[in-house]
Amino acid sequence: MSLDRQAPVSSLGEDGVVALLRDRFVVSPGAVGIGDDAAVFASPGDHLVMTTDTLMEGVDFALDYFSGMDLGWKAVAVNVSDLAAMGAEPSHAVATLCLPPRTSVGWVTDLIEGLAAAADRWGVELVGGDLSSAEQVSLGLTLVGHTDAAVLRSGAGVGDAIAVSGALGGSAGGLHQLRRDPSATGPLVERHRRPHPRLELSRALREVPVGAMIDVSDGLLVDLGRLLAASGRGCEVDPDLVPVDPALHGLGDLDPMQAALFGGEDFELVFTLAGEEMQKVIAVGETIGVAVTRIGTVTHGGCLLGGTTFDQLEGKRWDHLQSP
Amino acid sequence: MSLDRQAPVSSLGEDGVVALLRDRFVVSPGAVGIGDDAAVFASPGDHLVMTTDTLMEGVDFALDYFSGMDLGWKAVAVNVSDLAAMGAEPSHAVATLCLPPRTSVGWVTDLIEGLAAAADRWGVELVGGDLSSAEQVSLGLTLVGHTDAAVLRSGAGVGDAIAVSGALGGSAGGLHQLRRDPSATGPLVERHRRPHPRLELSRALREVPVGAMIDVSDGLLVDLGRLLAASGRGCEVDPDLVPVDPALHGLGDLDPMQAALFGGEDFELVFTLAGEEMQKVIAVGETIGVAVTRIGTVTHGGCLLGGTTFDQLEGKRWDHLQSP
Repeated sequence: MSLDRQAPVSSLGEDGVVALLRDRFVVSPGAVGIGDDAAVFASPGDHLVMTTDTLMEGVDFALDYFSGMDLGWKAVAVNVSDLAAMGAEPSHAVATLCLPPRTSVGWVTDLIEGLAAAADRWGVELVGGDLSSAEQVSLGLTLVGHTDAAVLRSGAGVGDAIAVSGALGGSAGGLHQLRRDPSATGPLVERHRRPHPRLELSRALREVPVGAMIDVSDGLLVDLGRLLAASGRGCEVDPDLVPVDPALHGLGDLDPMQAALFGGEDFELVFTLAGEEMQKVIAVGETIGVAVTRIGTVTHGGCLLGGTTFDQLEGKRWDHLQSP
Repeated sequence: MSLDRQAPVSSLGEDGVVALLRDRFVVSPGAVGIGDDAAVFASPGDHLVMTTDTLMEGVDFALDYFSGMDLGWKAVAVNVSDLAAMGAEPSHAVATLCLPPRTSVGWVTDLIEGLAAAADRWGVELVGGDLSSAEQVSLGLTLVGHTDAAVLRSGAGVGDAIAVSGALGGSAGGLHQLRRDPSATGPLVERHRRPHPRLELSRALREVPVGAMIDVSDGLLVDLGRLLAASGRGCEVDPDLVPVDPALHGLGDLDPMQAALFGGEDFELVFTLAGEEMQKVIAVGETIGVAVTRIGTVTHGGCLLGGTTFDQLEGKRWDHLQSP
């Protein structure tokens, strides 16, 4: 079927969009995918892990700088990141797509391609979903996976090293560029639009006794603070050790350290482990091309960054119900 | 903690709402619920069933006649109905709640109570979710369950009886009343706001060789048409046998038969089985207080209602991307 990309998606109707999705997402033999009342598939393991995250127009992205392909990709990526932070392997997903009826067919087919590309990249089978009209575009995914040993936020022990993967602040830098110029390009913009969750690192960490783990979705200090609160611990983080995305230094009008500490959506992993395991973890990271950096130590209580409490620094955190 | 029910939910913030949910939905020992990157729980079975359905303000309900309690209840009910239509047992769910920041705290706590009441009613454990601000209120649920023998839409055989549970058109009648008077009450309104999916009947039907099954969410003719299309079959339905909700006869300005044929959201089950099993199924229904009625027969092709094809009757079907 040849599609008119400029036509409104209402010209396809609900069944037309479902048909596009069903044709693109063919499920494994024996499974039931899109097109029945529910999906059916073999359980991926004895211990299931399940997460859901939605990207909302005007909150998580704007249409002037975010393509359908970006949205489809990122909806998968952010959910895979949550499972990576649990030490879990993703397997099956359902999607909820809300669209204004005027949305173009081309935008929707791009979204399907973005979903498919990211699902293929991280081994996710899209088996079902729901479609609704809405005033704002949104795409939510619920992702199921499995693990034999979930890594929780609550397992940090006093004296443990605090490690972070990759570099921080890049996604916030990209968003900053896009808001100034929706046609901006470059590594920071790419990082914001097409994040890569650290699933390979999470898999490699299964060989290491990690105490607690979380992904950086809302900013290093917020997410590390959540991990430590769940563990009933504190920390001392050395700001000089925080890995700042080097591309931020070219921006000029955004403080790289602020972006690294408060910027969200880097989807790096922050985790704790016995200090003597750090060299092993750094070596593990090197084998898959991911830097791992020790940024501090778990303490009995109180979260400190270079002697200042996180609370004193927390003016810039994002709240979905309070932020403008 | 005492809450100001009139205050906007933005006064609680994201963490405040998550705390309310976490306190209300305590998970089974050994499971991880709301508050980590993802939920963790023992797989309910070897064959998982997964569905997702979202209720959107302005599309599926309006705030002038739909309370927070109604929304929470119905979001669970509609998803349980999808699993009932697969012959599956629901077990775990995650919710996606989108709220304008001005929404009152009381409305949100009512929604949580509605979620909890319906989750308790059908044995669903709410283990996680996502929260976002939005211009429209919406609540989506993804529900996981299990089955040893999924009942698909595609299993209808020529000559099979077509059976339907309960009575049809009541939810459409209730919606009709509410649109005329948002303060309307009565059995039709109750049926629209607080539907009861046929999970008990679905369980009882596990003892019977059901060929194909679907729930009536978009209207009898639409949903039966989908079942028959998936089976590559047709039907002859006798309009005189269609069980019309008796409360519709008091409405006056809504044709009861139109409501029964085209009205959605009754969440009855429509299924096919060998004709000689009908008496057994009727008896099974009687033991749990659910009427089961034979309305027609599966044929080789062409969907007929009293000699008229469904296509000629299908002017009134709802399309999420095309309907006003």
